[in-house]
Amino acid sequence: MVSPKYAACLLIIGNEVLSGRTRDANLQYLGQRLNQRGIRLAEARVIPDDAEVIVAALNECRVRFDHVFTTGGIGPTHDDITAACVARAFGVALERNAEARRMLRRNYKSDAELTEARLKMTEIPAGASLIENPVSHAPGFRMENVFVFAGIPRIMQAMFEVIVDTLKGGAPVLSKAVTARLPEGILGGPLADVQKRFPDVEIGSYPFNRDGIHGASLVARGTEPARLEEAAAAIRQMVRDLGSEPIDGDLGVPPA
Amino acid sequence: MVSPKYAACLLIIGNEVLSGRTRDANLQYLGQRLNQRGIRLAEARVIPDDAEVIVAALNECRVRFDHVFTTGGIGPTHDDITAACVARAFGVALERNAEARRMLRRNYKSDAELTEARLKMTEIPAGASLIENPVSHAPGFRMENVFVFAGIPRIMQAMFEVIVDTLKGGAPVLSKAVTARLPEGILGGPLADVQKRFPDVEIGSYPFNRDGIHGASLVARGTEPARLEEAAAAIRQMVRDLGSEPIDGDLGVPPA
Repeated sequence: MVSPKYAACLLIIGNEVLSGRTRDANLQYLGQRLNQRGIRLAEARVIPDDAEVIVAALNECRVRFDHVFTTGGIGPTHDDITAACVARAFGVALERNAEARRMLRRNYKSDAELTEARLKMTEIPAGASLIENPVSHAPGFRMENVFVFAGIPRIMQAMFEVIVDTLKGGAPVLSKAVTARLPEGILGGPLADVQKRFPDVEIGSYPFNRDGIHGASLVARGTEPARLEEAAAAIRQMVRDLGSEPIDGDLGVPPA
Repeated sequence: MVSPKYAACLLIIGNEVLSGRTRDANLQYLGQRLNQRGIRLAEARVIPDDAEVIVAALNECRVRFDHVFTTGGIGPTHDDITAACVARAFGVALERNAEARRMLRRNYKSDAELTEARLKMTEIPAGASLIENPVSHAPGFRMENVFVFAGIPRIMQAMFEVIVDTLKGGAPVLSKAVTARLPEGILGGPLADVQKRFPDVEIGSYPFNRDGIHGASLVARGTEPARLEEAAAAIRQMVRDLGSEPIDGDLGVPPA
């Protein structure tokens, strides 16, 4: 098991994800970017627009993980309740924030366009620091180790990039993939032996069946480049010993 | 809040999802199909290939939810540990299952092809009932209210369809969508008033910006067709009152 010192959790907030209306696209982005920062995304949870559930998840996860990220529920409509839930979870007031108002004001020609619905987006838990939104200006915010982002992927990603350099992380989690044109039922035994020899490297096997080829992508993950290369070399040798020629790279990545 | 009597949880098991290597495709399918069966997908969790974490999640969720579904981790390699974790969670033995072996055997010409790795796929918690796998024959299984499926979407879906008629459910969760070519900052106030008039209908607002149009899909969900139509009519009227012509349907669905 690769265990970077720092672990994170993602809370994906939104009925529309659980109903299947919207397919989440933020988990994949966050998982990859956090690994680059030496942070392991250790859990992700999709939860509904339900205040009790959101507050309970926030309070559980903010003590269990170094960093907690939330996506969704910070817009101007009645079903956007994330900021209010963060305030409740931390036991602080939800307040209209003057700086958030200045940020949001840039979108409009006059104060008259700042409807009550839009001003809801300036309600921030007391003590939180704002996270700039380079796309549409309504800010996210950070409360201790909880980072609150928009749900729309383009905005979520822009907000994440604003704060990424402030995150405590470690050595990047790297990966090396070897593709074997052999079924997992043949690879399984020898691969378990390789994993035993490299307890500090996490080896995953992901089967695919594409263009008539039954194979598996064997992905080694770790933080030590030299050990990772040793594990990849052992995997390549294992594939050769099974009578097949390994291919470097992850040929089995499923289409997103 | 739409609250069908029955609530379900999905545990997505796999390091490859958390690292961003693989984008989950099962949540969306399951959420939609469960709604059709009158079951609310109330939570989904992505968790790593870590026995402690999997066992804890299983034991938490199987008492909290009517139905628990797991995807991933039932293949022939060392990182496939779901069946062993289910056995631990229920405090039963993990045993080689003769019927699972017969199912799996169909894939091969001779017994010799049943490698130890493949036979690992016949290890089933004692007392579980098997779920047929119409695609590749290695079965899933059911243990009380926990349904264990493969992670590969085509196989997961086939397994789900095998058991769907056995699930206790209620009236289907239906949805009616109205698309407004107005920004959420204008819709927010009036939409909150509509939601107050229809407490038994769940109304979500999902903004989009496509082909130069800023708009929002306003989606009403509920189990009573007549009430849903009333809510949709109220939303249409609200959009007209704001000076715009509503469009039936969810034009803002993001590309999957």
